[in-house]
Amino acid sequence: MNVFVLNCGSSSVKFQIINTDLDMFENDSDHRVAKGLIERVGKDDAIIRLEAEGQEAVKAVEPIHDHREAILRIKKWMEDPNTKIQGIHSWDDIQAIGHRVVHGGEKFTKSVKIDKDVLSEIEECSDLAPLHNPANLKGIQACYEIFGDKILQVAVFDTAFHSTMPEEAYMYAIPLEYYEKYKVRRYGFHGTSHRYVAYRYRKLVKIPREEVNVITLHLGNGCSAAAIQKGKSINTTMGLTPLEGLVMGTRSGDIDPAIIEYLFNKGIGSVAEIFNILNKKSGLMGVSGISNDMRDLEKAAAEGHHRAQLALKIFALRVKKYIGAYMAEMNGVNAIIFTAGIGENSVLIRKMVCEGLENLGLELDDELNKQAVGGKCLKISKEGSRVAVWVIPTNEELLLARDTVRVVKDAPRRW
Amino acid sequence: MNVFVLNCGSSSVKFQIINTDLDMFENDSDHRVAKGLIERVGKDDAIIRLEAEGQEAVKAVEPIHDHREAILRIKKWMEDPNTKIQGIHSWDDIQAIGHRVVHGGEKFTKSVKIDKDVLSEIEECSDLAPLHNPANLKGIQACYEIFGDKILQVAVFDTAFHSTMPEEAYMYAIPLEYYEKYKVRRYGFHGTSHRYVAYRYRKLVKIPREEVNVITLHLGNGCSAAAIQKGKSINTTMGLTPLEGLVMGTRSGDIDPAIIEYLFNKGIGSVAEIFNILNKKSGLMGVSGISNDMRDLEKAAAEGHHRAQLALKIFALRVKKYIGAYMAEMNGVNAIIFTAGIGENSVLIRKMVCEGLENLGLELDDELNKQAVGGKCLKISKEGSRVAVWVIPTNEELLLARDTVRVVKDAPRRW
Repeated sequence: MNVFVLNCGSSSVKFQIINTDLDMFENDSDHRVAKGLIERVGKDDAIIRLEAEGQEAVKAVEPIHDHREAILRIKKWMEDPNTKIQGIHSWDDIQAIGHRVVHGGEKFTKSVKIDKDVLSEIEECSDLAPLHNPANLKGIQACYEIFGDKILQVAVFDTAFHSTMPEEAYMYAIPLEYYEKYKVRRYGFHGTSHRYVAYRYRKLVKIPREEVNVITLHLGNGCSAAAIQKGKSINTTMGLTPLEGLVMGTRSGDIDPAIIEYLFNKGIGSVAEIFNILNKKSGLMGVSGISNDMRDLEKAAAEGHHRAQLALKIFALRVKKYIGAYMAEMNGVNAIIFTAGIGENSVLIRKMVCEGLENLGLELDDELNKQAVGGKCLKISKEGSRVAVWVIPTNEELLLARDTVRVVKDAPRRW
Repeated sequence: MNVFVLNCGSSSVKFQIINTDLDMFENDSDHRVAKGLIERVGKDDAIIRLEAEGQEAVKAVEPIHDHREAILRIKKWMEDPNTKIQGIHSWDDIQAIGHRVVHGGEKFTKSVKIDKDVLSEIEECSDLAPLHNPANLKGIQACYEIFGDKILQVAVFDTAFHSTMPEEAYMYAIPLEYYEKYKVRRYGFHGTSHRYVAYRYRKLVKIPREEVNVITLHLGNGCSAAAIQKGKSINTTMGLTPLEGLVMGTRSGDIDPAIIEYLFNKGIGSVAEIFNILNKKSGLMGVSGISNDMRDLEKAAAEGHHRAQLALKIFALRVKKYIGAYMAEMNGVNAIIFTAGIGENSVLIRKMVCEGLENLGLELDDELNKQAVGGKCLKISKEGSRVAVWVIPTNEELLLARDTVRVVKDAPRRW
């Protein structure tokens, strides 16, 4: 099957086409045949980049007024005789569409076939993810408008993998009525990524799902950790929203909530303005004052920039604390897995996070750590380390495509 | 020396008189000779309770209009011929006054003799503890008005013990200017209690301060944990304010900060009203819906009350996570110490917190755990447990008295 994997933001459309099927999962013979990104959707100068695997990318700047036009533009490119996508000549070669949907609320605990009921339920969850779900919905609606019911659409939720958390992990210690009335609880995000690397780990060490007791660290632009026990997420750092937990590029992660009242009373701004600061101007950016990009900060820190050094230290300490927290919650773990941009590439952050955990059974191999960059999949702990440390590149799109196949073929989800 | 230890709240005056001196510290021969509490200060029906050690308490309801009148009432009682306080006949037998002051900001890293400069600096910190410091100041000013410079006054700060935290532990990942302009950082509280039980632990196991690597859990009405490395606090759960961290009687502890914006947008109330809910109606009370008192909740939980059971589980999981977090931050610890009302008395909570930490080297002895109630000081882990677990009753007043002696006699503070 060829699956069109779609990830729509408020002003962007990102996609991959992945050739996959049930019998291809085990030997990993499924693979991407095309990918692309349209940015500045809604503008006259949208930036277009479309790339068939093994071919040069098509780049253009054109007016793209909405998500529908963006998808039509991709369709036009696919059907252009000059475009050489393996196994694909027209849209008729696409068997299904898999949509990334950020928030599935409490309703969606796994990937589902999209129909009118599902659409309205995703809309209901928009309240919980006002920046993301409406954009995801635009993508789904655009596909309906273009293809009608001809192509099956599947929704894969960022929150679904965490739906196995026990009550004591997902409930906050606030009046229970806010859960009952307004659904305030921990949902967690990055579920597709946590699930993918935990699955990949199981394959690498050849153990059944029930024996997978790991902490997965998705450290990218957004950052989150998950506690995975017997293959199921039992806790994660992001909460009602993606603001909680680890330090991120521009998000604060955990703070004393009373800081908000304190800053509000200082006249810093309205509630909305303060949360804009916590989401967009905090984290690595806010502490360092120079960048939200870990590579810039590592460079500046090496040159002696104090605030950059401090940003790295705060970031690493937060990750380390959650490793300990989840080790305690799970009574020990088999492995810790780093993934996403920073997790897959920052030798320094991995070292800062792991050093000083020897007495908890975790010993990093400095040489192996240095080798694990640029998308390599590698175990980077010492041979005798009781807790293994892995770097496993994430691939959310592949998992989206596979889940789409599973839903279309009504096959059981093992991960 | 007889030290008058004073803890003033906005409408309460609590005191002890403690007979202590440098040479009495080592063999713990210092002791309380009187104690008392005046509540509803500012009302015509203030509640008075004054008690000389070994004597029946004097109870009364009288008009007490301010902190000055409260202290004068205590003085009158002390000088009443019917009052038999060991070694004390009049105020002239009091050599110094030790005040509990909640917030010492960044300025005060140890206890200090109070003079005009110190007074104004404590006042400056009021901004950071608007509910507490002004009340503490009233107590100090009342003593000045009554005794002038005749009796030396000393301030002992709740925050001081945590002043040894490294930058990465006390800085939040928000724009650095809020630290520079408004002093937003982690300060931590309950310092006197954490310091006292860590000191008591050192005495019990007979090791030098530099070898004290422990996690202290002050679980009372307010709750906080501290990571103590080489005898110094390197992290603690309370932050800018006492709202952050563990679940408490009515405080939420850690939440996704974005919950505040979400509830604000739902029209729950003003910022001040939402923080009133997070401080006064959340925690054990908010989750259980029935009580903020752990004893009530244990009873209800045993009878099958689901929300009470949930409150206990959330409470215990939060403590367990911080034990893990601080174990990671310190690369393992020698001991975990429970103290304060819940910590000294709740067999169930200690069990819930400690069970499932065996693989991290912590094994609770169920029998010893059951024995440690009602102010007993006891090691409650199994003989072979790599991480010891202790119950050590706190005594903040004793530490306040001793610090007062040290400051008056210009003796070094070892703890």
